[in-house]
Amino acid sequence: MRTHYCGELRSHHVSETVTLCGWVDRRRDHGGVIFIDLRDRAGVVQIVSDPERTPDSYEIANGLRNEYVVRVTGKASERPADSLNPKLPTGEIEIYAETIELLNSVSKQLPFQVATTEEESVKEELRLKYRYLDLRRDRMTQNLQLRHNVIKAIRRFLEDRYNFTEIETPILTRSTPEGARDYLVPSRVNPGEWYALPQSPQLFKQLLMVSGFDRYYQIARCFRDEDLRADRQPEFTQLDMEMSFMSQEEILELNENLICHIFQAVKGIELPHPFPRLTYAEAMAKYGTDRPDTRFGLELVEVSDILGSSGFKVFSSAVKQGGSIKVLPIPQGNDTISNVRIKPGGDLFKEATIAGAKGIAYIRVRDGGEIDTIGAIKDNLTPEQKQQLLEKTGAQPGHLLLFGAGDTATVNKSLDRLRQVIGQQLGLIDDSKINLLWVTDFPLFEWNADEKRLEALHHPFTAPNLEDIEDLSTARSQAYDLIYNGIEVGGGSIRIHQRDIQEKVFEAIGLSMEEARRQFGFLLEAFEYGTPPHGGIAYGLDRLVMLIAQEESIRDVIAFPKTQQARSLLTDAPASVGDKQLKELYVASTYEPD
Amino acid sequence: MRTHYCGELRSHHVSETVTLCGWVDRRRDHGGVIFIDLRDRAGVVQIVSDPERTPDSYEIANGLRNEYVVRVTGKASERPADSLNPKLPTGEIEIYAETIELLNSVSKQLPFQVATTEEESVKEELRLKYRYLDLRRDRMTQNLQLRHNVIKAIRRFLEDRYNFTEIETPILTRSTPEGARDYLVPSRVNPGEWYALPQSPQLFKQLLMVSGFDRYYQIARCFRDEDLRADRQPEFTQLDMEMSFMSQEEILELNENLICHIFQAVKGIELPHPFPRLTYAEAMAKYGTDRPDTRFGLELVEVSDILGSSGFKVFSSAVKQGGSIKVLPIPQGNDTISNVRIKPGGDLFKEATIAGAKGIAYIRVRDGGEIDTIGAIKDNLTPEQKQQLLEKTGAQPGHLLLFGAGDTATVNKSLDRLRQVIGQQLGLIDDSKINLLWVTDFPLFEWNADEKRLEALHHPFTAPNLEDIEDLSTARSQAYDLIYNGIEVGGGSIRIHQRDIQEKVFEAIGLSMEEARRQFGFLLEAFEYGTPPHGGIAYGLDRLVMLIAQEESIRDVIAFPKTQQARSLLTDAPASVGDKQLKELYVASTYEPD
Repeated sequence: MRTHYCGELRSHHVSETVTLCGWVDRRRDHGGVIFIDLRDRAGVVQIVSDPERTPDSYEIANGLRNEYVVRVTGKASERPADSLNPKLPTGEIEIYAETIELLNSVSKQLPFQVATTEEESVKEELRLKYRYLDLRRDRMTQNLQLRHNVIKAIRRFLEDRYNFTEIETPILTRSTPEGARDYLVPSRVNPGEWYALPQSPQLFKQLLMVSGFDRYYQIARCFRDEDLRADRQPEFTQLDMEMSFMSQEEILELNENLICHIFQAVKGIELPHPFPRLTYAEAMAKYGTDRPDTRFGLELVEVSDILGSSGFKVFSSAVKQGGSIKVLPIPQGNDTISNVRIKPGGDLFKEATIAGAKGIAYIRVRDGGEIDTIGAIKDNLTPEQKQQLLEKTGAQPGHLLLFGAGDTATVNKSLDRLRQVIGQQLGLIDDSKINLLWVTDFPLFEWNADEKRLEALHHPFTAPNLEDIEDLSTARSQAYDLIYNGIEVGGGSIRIHQRDIQEKVFEAIGLSMEEARRQFGFLLEAFEYGTPPHGGIAYGLDRLVMLIAQEESIRDVIAFPKTQQARSLLTDAPASVGDKQLKELYVASTYEPD
Repeated sequence: MRTHYCGELRSHHVSETVTLCGWVDRRRDHGGVIFIDLRDRAGVVQIVSDPERTPDSYEIANGLRNEYVVRVTGKASERPADSLNPKLPTGEIEIYAETIELLNSVSKQLPFQVATTEEESVKEELRLKYRYLDLRRDRMTQNLQLRHNVIKAIRRFLEDRYNFTEIETPILTRSTPEGARDYLVPSRVNPGEWYALPQSPQLFKQLLMVSGFDRYYQIARCFRDEDLRADRQPEFTQLDMEMSFMSQEEILELNENLICHIFQAVKGIELPHPFPRLTYAEAMAKYGTDRPDTRFGLELVEVSDILGSSGFKVFSSAVKQGGSIKVLPIPQGNDTISNVRIKPGGDLFKEATIAGAKGIAYIRVRDGGEIDTIGAIKDNLTPEQKQQLLEKTGAQPGHLLLFGAGDTATVNKSLDRLRQVIGQQLGLIDDSKINLLWVTDFPLFEWNADEKRLEALHHPFTAPNLEDIEDLSTARSQAYDLIYNGIEVGGGSIRIHQRDIQEKVFEAIGLSMEEARRQFGFLLEAFEYGTPPHGGIAYGLDRLVMLIAQEESIRDVIAFPKTQQARSLLTDAPASVGDKQLKELYVASTYEPD
């Protein structure tokens, strides 16, 4: 139906007759001559209809409005010198429309402007309801194209450079308990029984390693019925990989190459590598979190050894009860952060208490190393302690030292929060930086205080560090996360490949042998038929694309996302269904609205 | 962990020290020297352990059994001239194992043999239960690799040659009524409401065209809760495409190029093209079916005009009642097909009656054009009718003419069935042939006698042929199917892109305006905001790969398929779930086992 895309026309097309199809991006009437910006996926080109020169197209051109769909045939001409548009790739030419065919019109008022030149800010609800128009806008077209480019770069890299095989795993499957709720699907053919939608292809990809596939990947749809939190989707996309006969070191190297390739391919950016690494223990010590934003400093300093014996009760009792005292040192903090903000009622105080702290102790370092703080701290600080404190925290005159003291988890959580808020507020974060970081050596388990049992920090198929195998409860694992500017974008591990170790891990998390066999019998059995050592990783693809697109929400890189209420405003799913349909499935809703 | 894959070693590696990982495919003890065929995804290589030459590896080598997982380091050597194996790509060399590390063993008896040299026929149930071992076997490894290669060829062709964008559409969505039942998913967050899993991304891909994406594709998972028929899967994979501003002719050409490219890329086969085309009317006339196997002749001939006035009641009443009389002429049929097979109780009679016919009338053509049949036919045939019949059917002495007479649908169905059975039995089908064929110009609607209403032959978004727009009930559509050796592998159409036509089609299939708006309001509304002309196609990817792999079942080209009872024998999904889980979802099972 066309000879060219609008956006690909250049001056070398001049005097060719072209046929174009697209949308009216803008229509202007300049003293009887109609100018139309015609838009298709490749860009915009100027169409001219002149009652003298192109009488056949004039009437239709005159009746066109924004977003009408037309087919235009005409000759490409050089624009007059005074109407060249250097901002437009097609800005040296225009098309004199010999004929215009109206393919479709717009019969309702547009809910918002679509044109490329418009940067109207539109309410998200409206965007989601008229998603087909929202996607027509430049920003979303670019985002989905970027998403495609990222996925394309991933596929080609894994296939061509590392010989991965893409294999599809089931969507209708059995629930794999990974912390979130499963979406369930009643089986009509097996009444009373249910499929679950996968939270990840974890078990299937491990079984593919048992099958000898050696290197598997999939751009996999995953599902989690989570409580509504900002920026989660009921279904999301994961780059899922698994490899046999590779050490953790080899897996990390392959993945660094992959990430570098993606940035090179879609952004032309050469990322420095190898990526820095921190063990979980180091990350917690320095940043109070296992996903630190390393684009700025403000590293935490542990001072339990110096102040544990202080006469200041808050400090000494923290250490006595097995907790810690840590400092967040802020250079020039005396000038930039007032006492009011730190004390009860202040914004920083609030941040700390949201994270569980009771408050923030602080010391201001003055000229000559004098310190300025409340009496209870100052009076209980020996000159030696003071000296050691200044030395260990690297504090200089002008420094503000914020303290966390108490159980270590709360200290870390509150200082991590303060560090991020302050880093942001003080403008310490360079938005142009792309900091990638591996965090390794996670603990195998964490204590679930509610259920009074250990639970797997990643998932129960993660291999323990072989040096720690004697006592699994405190063991490190062979797990690794990839952190991108403080956000986890990928995580994986070397997996258990031996039945006895897998059974020990199930036992440690309180899964009875019987229950383990009921749920994972097929995996345990597979381990007995020659399972190779293997490991893998999964990336949250929506999140990765969002970061590369510099968007704030994954909804902006998903074609048809759902709201935080897990609804589609476009199709109005979920919806009620007929009784006949439910009867056939042998299910009923038990919901009784008030 | 390794330096090479087993299967990639060649004579130029001789005297290199290599480290390999893999499975013991076979172990032989030749007078104290152990030979191991070590297998990985790339192939097999021979490992040698000799108590004299490689004492360090001998003990482990001696203890190895089939499917043990090992890591072997040793030097590649030329094989002695008398033990070269020309059948094996690695057959010129062997590896003297300096060390062997046992990575995992097999502690249970294998349910079936895995080794590459074994061609044991294994019960499908066992294969599906131990799928991870079944996939380790050569046949299934090849099939999944072929599947990957097909998908890879598709992606690259569409992306590189035609600039398609891959876009993911939702799995949790609203039901689109396309003939089969939907799988439903209860929403916890919106209690009493249900998502449906998509039977196809039809509406979303049309909306993407409204968005201006121009060329979309997706390797899309689709779901149909169908009654159990041979070789259907609850979830299946579709190559889904949609294009704007392309005529049917352009779409067919693009798709021919795609199919040719696939065969070229994965099989090195150059398919002849353009592919032949038949209209629906031609296909029904010549073959009695809209998906004819054109690898052999035996074309049907309509003789209603000749025999409609026959005194033989079966013939004349068929025509009088608006039906037809058709002939399946079988050259040399007199020699190859006996009367017993055609008469009641015979196998061909049975085939015809399964298809709804009451029986088969027949005529045998003898020397000199004499005919041999039952009196009722012979006595009622004028010499002129006889002459016309022989001429029109091209019958020669030796021909057997099988007749269908009655309502046209039954005549076609029964003669199609007979044609296929006889073509098969007479060895007329050349298995090496790959016949691709477009069938076009399908009727827009067919009559659903049960529901006493018209229904869409493809789906209600298919555009009518513009020449037939005055009376939609008898209109042809702009739909096309791709037939591969008599099997439908793809189907598509130009879509409706105008609200008034879409509403007329909904009305014609008996969907009230209110119901149409409730179900498809968002699509109808989208048509008012500048929807371009568009069309698309979808291919059953499992079926396409099955045909290329020359397998008989799509289960053999799916990594983790379900049985005909929609169960996974590996994971035992679907399964019962806890009451707590159902309560959270506000649903209950109403199934009461007897």
